[in-house]
Amino acid sequence: MARIDDLGKIATRLRIHSLRMTTTAGSGHPTTCLSAADLAACLFFSAMRWNTKDPDDPGSDEFVLSKGHAAPLLWAVYAEAGVIPLESLLDLRKITSDLEGHPTPRMPWVKAATGSLGQGLSVGAGMALAQRLDKSPARTFVLMGDGECAEGQVWEAAAAAAYWKLRNLVAVVDVNRFGQSDPTMHQHDLGALKRKFGAFGWDAVIVDGHKIDRILAALAQAGKKGRPTAILARTLKGKGVSFIEDRNGWHGKPLKADELARALEELGCLPAVDARKFIHTAKPFQKKKAASSFNFPRTPYTEKTATRLAYGNALLSLARVAPSVVAIDGDVKNSTYADKFFEAFPARTFQSFIAEQNMVGVGIGLAAKGYVPFMATFAAFLTRAHDQIRMAAYSFSDLKICGSHVGVSIGEDGPSQMGLEDLAMFRPIPGCVVLYPSDAVSSEGCVALAAAHRGLVYLRTSRPATPILYPPGETFEIGGSKVLRKGEGDAVTVIAAGITVHEALKAREALLKEGLGLRVIDAYSIEPLDTVTLAREAAETGGRVVVVEDHYHAGGLGEAVAQALAGRAVITHLCIRELPRSGRPDELLERFGISAAHIARAARELAGR
Amino acid sequence: MARIDDLGKIATRLRIHSLRMTTTAGSGHPTTCLSAADLAACLFFSAMRWNTKDPDDPGSDEFVLSKGHAAPLLWAVYAEAGVIPLESLLDLRKITSDLEGHPTPRMPWVKAATGSLGQGLSVGAGMALAQRLDKSPARTFVLMGDGECAEGQVWEAAAAAAYWKLRNLVAVVDVNRFGQSDPTMHQHDLGALKRKFGAFGWDAVIVDGHKIDRILAALAQAGKKGRPTAILARTLKGKGVSFIEDRNGWHGKPLKADELARALEELGCLPAVDARKFIHTAKPFQKKKAASSFNFPRTPYTEKTATRLAYGNALLSLARVAPSVVAIDGDVKNSTYADKFFEAFPARTFQSFIAEQNMVGVGIGLAAKGYVPFMATFAAFLTRAHDQIRMAAYSFSDLKICGSHVGVSIGEDGPSQMGLEDLAMFRPIPGCVVLYPSDAVSSEGCVALAAAHRGLVYLRTSRPATPILYPPGETFEIGGSKVLRKGEGDAVTVIAAGITVHEALKAREALLKEGLGLRVIDAYSIEPLDTVTLAREAAETGGRVVVVEDHYHAGGLGEAVAQALAGRAVITHLCIRELPRSGRPDELLERFGISAAHIARAARELAGR
Repeated sequence: MARIDDLGKIATRLRIHSLRMTTTAGSGHPTTCLSAADLAACLFFSAMRWNTKDPDDPGSDEFVLSKGHAAPLLWAVYAEAGVIPLESLLDLRKITSDLEGHPTPRMPWVKAATGSLGQGLSVGAGMALAQRLDKSPARTFVLMGDGECAEGQVWEAAAAAAYWKLRNLVAVVDVNRFGQSDPTMHQHDLGALKRKFGAFGWDAVIVDGHKIDRILAALAQAGKKGRPTAILARTLKGKGVSFIEDRNGWHGKPLKADELARALEELGCLPAVDARKFIHTAKPFQKKKAASSFNFPRTPYTEKTATRLAYGNALLSLARVAPSVVAIDGDVKNSTYADKFFEAFPARTFQSFIAEQNMVGVGIGLAAKGYVPFMATFAAFLTRAHDQIRMAAYSFSDLKICGSHVGVSIGEDGPSQMGLEDLAMFRPIPGCVVLYPSDAVSSEGCVALAAAHRGLVYLRTSRPATPILYPPGETFEIGGSKVLRKGEGDAVTVIAAGITVHEALKAREALLKEGLGLRVIDAYSIEPLDTVTLAREAAETGGRVVVVEDHYHAGGLGEAVAQALAGRAVITHLCIRELPRSGRPDELLERFGISAAHIARAARELAGR
Repeated sequence: MARIDDLGKIATRLRIHSLRMTTTAGSGHPTTCLSAADLAACLFFSAMRWNTKDPDDPGSDEFVLSKGHAAPLLWAVYAEAGVIPLESLLDLRKITSDLEGHPTPRMPWVKAATGSLGQGLSVGAGMALAQRLDKSPARTFVLMGDGECAEGQVWEAAAAAAYWKLRNLVAVVDVNRFGQSDPTMHQHDLGALKRKFGAFGWDAVIVDGHKIDRILAALAQAGKKGRPTAILARTLKGKGVSFIEDRNGWHGKPLKADELARALEELGCLPAVDARKFIHTAKPFQKKKAASSFNFPRTPYTEKTATRLAYGNALLSLARVAPSVVAIDGDVKNSTYADKFFEAFPARTFQSFIAEQNMVGVGIGLAAKGYVPFMATFAAFLTRAHDQIRMAAYSFSDLKICGSHVGVSIGEDGPSQMGLEDLAMFRPIPGCVVLYPSDAVSSEGCVALAAAHRGLVYLRTSRPATPILYPPGETFEIGGSKVLRKGEGDAVTVIAAGITVHEALKAREALLKEGLGLRVIDAYSIEPLDTVTLAREAAETGGRVVVVEDHYHAGGLGEAVAQALAGRAVITHLCIRELPRSGRPDELLERFGISAAHIARAARELAGR
């Protein structure tokens, strides 16, 4: 058992490390490390139970540094715990070091990247859900800043965690009263934060964040009321160094060499204490390994079916064979058809209500604990979680995200409900797979590809029912495409995906009567793109290409093809070029230039007819 | 003065209209119109003061339908008020009608598009701020749903509105206890919502949302406590029609013809009441017209200067001549350099703390009232507001958004802080102008272009100081570019922007020694792109083009050029193709392939050297 003065000494060591690291690096956020040092010492060297030998021990408590700019403090903790060498701390922020400016899982003790504020509580909620699913005795601790409590996602997460009764989730808020450019909204009015967390269903307590005994007492009570716990700690930014303590204007500034010398004089030399011996080891716990497969039986389709409905069918079939698959909803599961999974497996599915940021954040947490989360909402509303999706990429998260109701083909609901920028949101993310099925068979095929692929996958589904194009046994692959129609002497290649594949097929029928051959490709793998096939077919049709997509002009299939075939094809790009409006789907395809008639016209022009 | 039974009759008329409209349209959300009908009647025909002759009367109270799927109710209100013909209601959702499925400002009484939930309170807060700036007696009313209160943005807006003491802001929450696919988190536990709004600093009251007298009494007290007011109204979804009232599964469903007949039997025939005579006219109020110009004196630069710093300088100069310019910050103004404006003009600048969604939403509200809001944060964190930016486009908002700290050139802070997907976020938006200056002079020039352009403009600024490229008097234009270096017999054209312009210039110097001529273009107008110049210069260098950008591979300058020059150039695209990491800026440019050395290598390869 650590004594109070031992923990105080450890905190001093953490402060000294943080100051030295940031001065050596020449950048970073030392003052926010100093405010949280006592909290970190109490967490890692007293309250938490964890195995310093194995970052993936399922019996270990989890930790999320939501205030990611305090990364030096976290690295200092791991050095004190003997997990990394003390001397490695001075490599902070170097290109050769995994001790980055903000935490990423390049450092294996970090389970989710942080640094975009206000996201850690959702991630922690996801981990706590995973621990409950695992029946693990472990808990999850999230260290937050007061500034980031202005982010709405914090309150999405707070509401969901209370709704889910996550008594194994503990948030510690380092209330140092300063943001980056200004004092925070509530400064040291901790009562305001307590009222907020209380109103959101949490057990909220206020402590002095520099009094070790008070912090320990609060941590000892955490979860005892059967609710998630928020420990609101009154702290001073820059605590322990007189000339930076509790002052504005010191957010992202390391000390200069002479300032560091003065600071170290105030803090004294590194106190002699071996932090390692105070660590509470994890309770022995083995996660039950369930047989898991991503190979599910496919639905035989004969009738016109929406790709979103096939997504729902496939997800349910997948869930039956893969116990690691879980789902999170943003209260649209009856539109995305994830509801089939929800009804069949209530224990593995989570309603996050209309809160897309939290939905993705919780997914990151679940994925960090070995689950494979599927989440779906209208593609348009995924823009709400763009920052969280970005952070999922930096977290190397194994997330499967489905955006339904894409394009003007949704019809009367109007522009706010149309996903027209989703390809441009997912395509830039390095390594992200983007799939866009055109019929029910390929939709199920894409779900299978998504499940089997380790990493971030985006699946784009459509609202209207579309004819079946493929036989039941058809196989698909990441980076693949299908040449659907091909004839001797075809004049033009049409590259389409999703709803526009069907328009292209109609255009082909019409042009055949005029003696003009159209080659039609279903480019269902948008990223990576099947460049080899597209280039070959384009060459065979004299380099004449029409790309047609139900998406805005930039960042989608059209630009992907332009990039891939640069210098090798003349391309007419049909896409949505103005702000759309309500109307019938067929009217909108026509009005905004992506209908069969427009494709036929573009092909005629390219062919010189 | 309307009597209670008159308002009840009006509410019945609104219900009948909403049912008929959606059945005729064959889609839409009638039940959510029925729950809010009494609230709407009390608002528009009693509490609000507004001029039915002029949607832009500055003395009129403003209204935001945050629960945008209740659009039929809003259209019915305007028909009852005599603003649009009654018979036009049956054109709901037709491609020929401006009565869209969710409100857009195509209908001139709508000031901001809604339909992505949880955004209206921020917009309303922006309008209330504008009314206060105008010294107008008018107020702003926001009608919300209980389901959307799960969105974090609601709590960002709630916190900010209380912080700003917006006593002229009134939120009415239609608590009908059903979301789309499930009952809401709190259902009819209105105390839970009251605790939340109360904790966030609002005057929150609970009323029966179907008792006209109670609603009126609550509205009469709104703002009396000097705080924003939330009226939490207990309602029944589908109120007034027995077989849909208070039932799950009726979210987005119109009644079938026979169901409508039964419903109309229950509601009775249209009650005889002339709603128009109950409207309270607006107080006479004229907004003071201040002389405004966007023509500001430029700073003379000689030393290396960061484009973000020049942005701050220009914004301050602009603010001095243009009183309509306002600014909102997400607590990073000392990094974006918006702080210069904040310090000089505290009354026209608003700290929204770390809450980017609310920042943009408030901007939409201010813009709707005639202000020109500039808002800036790290480009990476603008992804947090992607949905709000999307809705700004559908609101035809005159917003100027600056994203700073773009690309790997920020260095040690690491990937979470690097804007690498921002061009792909803004370029797809139809009509959005995207500018990316490379030096301080062009940065000020771009601020001037942004201010003078009516509509959404995105400005991309960089962290490091860069050399001055242009003389003080240089002029820039939307859709322009600059051929910076040009020589007889140049072998390759390099198209660059921002930080990579400087790398391209270095590459040119190096290659000149090898006798290889490089043409260098500063493509500062990313959208629209200067296709004519780029095509001409590319042709003059044999169709050999290198595009180099500090951005991910998709949706940025490279794909814009590939699209523009399809079939006319062979392009080597240098960009960030993997997840980056912490390191020194120069090391990162080299490591991720966009440095002068990489440009030189690519040019040599294209030129066959």
